[in-house]
Amino acid sequence: MNTPARSIIVTIGDELLLGRTVDSNAAWLADRLTVLGLSVARIETIGDDTERIRDAVSRARSDSALVVTTGGLGPTDDDRTLDAVTAALDGRTPDLEVDNPRGVEAARWFAPEGEYGAVLVLPGPPREMTALFPKTETAIRRALEDRLGSVHTRTIATTGIPESRLAPRVQPLIDDLDGVAVAFLPDLQGVDLRLTVRDRPDGEAQTLLDSAEQSISEVVRPYRVSAPSGDVVEALTEALVDRGWTVAVAESCTGGGIGERLTRRPGASRAFLGGIIAYSNAIKRDLLGVPEDLITEHGAVSEPVAKAMAEGVCAAVGADCGIGISGIAGPDGGSPGKPVGTVCFSATTPDGASVATQGFRGDRDAVRRRSAQAAMVQLLRRVEGGS
Amino acid sequence: MNTPARSIIVTIGDELLLGRTVDSNAAWLADRLTVLGLSVARIETIGDDTERIRDAVSRARSDSALVVTTGGLGPTDDDRTLDAVTAALDGRTPDLEVDNPRGVEAARWFAPEGEYGAVLVLPGPPREMTALFPKTETAIRRALEDRLGSVHTRTIATTGIPESRLAPRVQPLIDDLDGVAVAFLPDLQGVDLRLTVRDRPDGEAQTLLDSAEQSISEVVRPYRVSAPSGDVVEALTEALVDRGWTVAVAESCTGGGIGERLTRRPGASRAFLGGIIAYSNAIKRDLLGVPEDLITEHGAVSEPVAKAMAEGVCAAVGADCGIGISGIAGPDGGSPGKPVGTVCFSATTPDGASVATQGFRGDRDAVRRRSAQAAMVQLLRRVEGGS
Repeated sequence: MNTPARSIIVTIGDELLLGRTVDSNAAWLADRLTVLGLSVARIETIGDDTERIRDAVSRARSDSALVVTTGGLGPTDDDRTLDAVTAALDGRTPDLEVDNPRGVEAARWFAPEGEYGAVLVLPGPPREMTALFPKTETAIRRALEDRLGSVHTRTIATTGIPESRLAPRVQPLIDDLDGVAVAFLPDLQGVDLRLTVRDRPDGEAQTLLDSAEQSISEVVRPYRVSAPSGDVVEALTEALVDRGWTVAVAESCTGGGIGERLTRRPGASRAFLGGIIAYSNAIKRDLLGVPEDLITEHGAVSEPVAKAMAEGVCAAVGADCGIGISGIAGPDGGSPGKPVGTVCFSATTPDGASVATQGFRGDRDAVRRRSAQAAMVQLLRRVEGGS
Repeated sequence: MNTPARSIIVTIGDELLLGRTVDSNAAWLADRLTVLGLSVARIETIGDDTERIRDAVSRARSDSALVVTTGGLGPTDDDRTLDAVTAALDGRTPDLEVDNPRGVEAARWFAPEGEYGAVLVLPGPPREMTALFPKTETAIRRALEDRLGSVHTRTIATTGIPESRLAPRVQPLIDDLDGVAVAFLPDLQGVDLRLTVRDRPDGEAQTLLDSAEQSISEVVRPYRVSAPSGDVVEALTEALVDRGWTVAVAESCTGGGIGERLTRRPGASRAFLGGIIAYSNAIKRDLLGVPEDLITEHGAVSEPVAKAMAEGVCAAVGADCGIGISGIAGPDGGSPGKPVGTVCFSATTPDGASVATQGFRGDRDAVRRRSAQAAMVQLLRRVEGGS
């Protein structure tokens, strides 16, 4: 088996060194290069300085098969990347230019024959960079063919189970299959499993990936996100559209965050009608029809109130399905019985209602994001026909 | 005037090279180091590999006064930073350990006397790292006293005007003042001005910063965000609390994003009651009381509808102030008269209502964020007593 070819990412811009911009390009590129079969050995961020850019590119080329730069292009004085890369390549002109559908500056591809490090120069604005990179993948593959070998990957998205519980159940099943590797890739929304097969013909690789997927399917099923993007929002919207159901949200601790997520993708209006942000108890009572004595008896953060919120928003809005959520996002407001991080949520469909209480870890932001995700997953499982 | 001492940030973790985690630590640290008076010459991201970490730290020390590392600490096999840093410093033990209030691993500070690069080792989880760094600032200042000189900065947050229009009006006024430098720091929410005075005694520096602030105050006033954090949400909440007013939101294109932002900080309930997410026209009509013929005549994306939404949510919820927002976030749904990016919004207070229409640039996400920000600013200006 080949070792993966090494790549190095160089992101360029004074704004990155001043800490004004979080560098999202590096992570996006690292993910794509990994899927292409390259390993990312290093990410380096430097300022808009011709000499430093030239040095960084020269050093990176001596140590990797591919160097990708972002930023520092374009018509202003700050934009020095192209001069610097040309200098690092002794005056060479690009082997390929790819027009930018969302901006002015093209992508440039330098692949000196017989030499080591090829260089891909991309613009810095993320929406331009992400549109251009895929158009260069064929060139990258061709130039690095010998080094890359063939790589087949398949990603299985899960949510609702931490890596520490998922990995010990999945890893042994994969270890039994010769030639398949698995990586566990966690973030705030869940854990992706990436299955990888290297250096096998297409058909054989697909058969291996199918067996791997099959052998872990039972363990993974309760947590799997079926959407191609691995995004619960996409899976939920498509599942609702399939059933011809609409949805509305009643949000307290998340303050509108579930609605915001459900409308982040275009086409949300095929299922999403809207909702009520019931931050105050008066709104829970007056607009959602949650009985006052339910709040008095159980507290605003309780399963009966979450359920009444979900049912109330369905009635108010005329939706088929509802999400109700109420919790203690912190940092204050916790009590011994209901510590910070306690969130109650409920999902209703025409078939009935589910309720749950969970304790979420992390700061205010993490509690809000994680609980929003859990509530959407709860509804997804109901709509998919589970409990 | 001293040139600022150079620093280098090294972030460590295989997950960063796989592109699974966006590195927010680097930007946070770069901002703080800049405010301390250091320049950040480079940010380098590497994997959990002892030899690579040692090499990166050694190289960085030879080239800077301060090296800050994050990540790769802690009890698992992957965590190799401390061994590697100790090796890079020839076995030296830390000069200072600072306990971690939010986790297990302490911060370690190495300041070899008479040598060049001091090293600060921080844990990777952002909430631990951001809690620990401020506790090390005194040690950094003391160790780098000769190199840092004194630095006094003041940040003035603005919103609602792009850097390209603000800079030509502000820069000449600052150029007239000897010893004050200004940097323009833009992001999606607005542009911060950072005024810097180096190597002057405290009193003199403050006087200089006061004059600078005074001389640009007239130009900046219409766009200034008064909150200490520079965050419009904080400014708006405090302004509402000052006047004893409550607020509710009626959101269409933002889908709950304004409510989500208004509740991101603890204490939001002092002013924020909740709102209605009126993604469908039926909700605009039934829950917000927007007259059907207003929608038919002007369209859902129109100033009269935005105003009726703001007034409707105040009435429905019993709030003093309201925000109504309706727009075309894209990528579809635009027309020649109302292209993608067109957003109408309205702010009402007990003193009356404002309405506006703006064309926002960028993709769906950018249009939603920018328009949410503009709508909150519109209400802030009204509550502050402007128009």
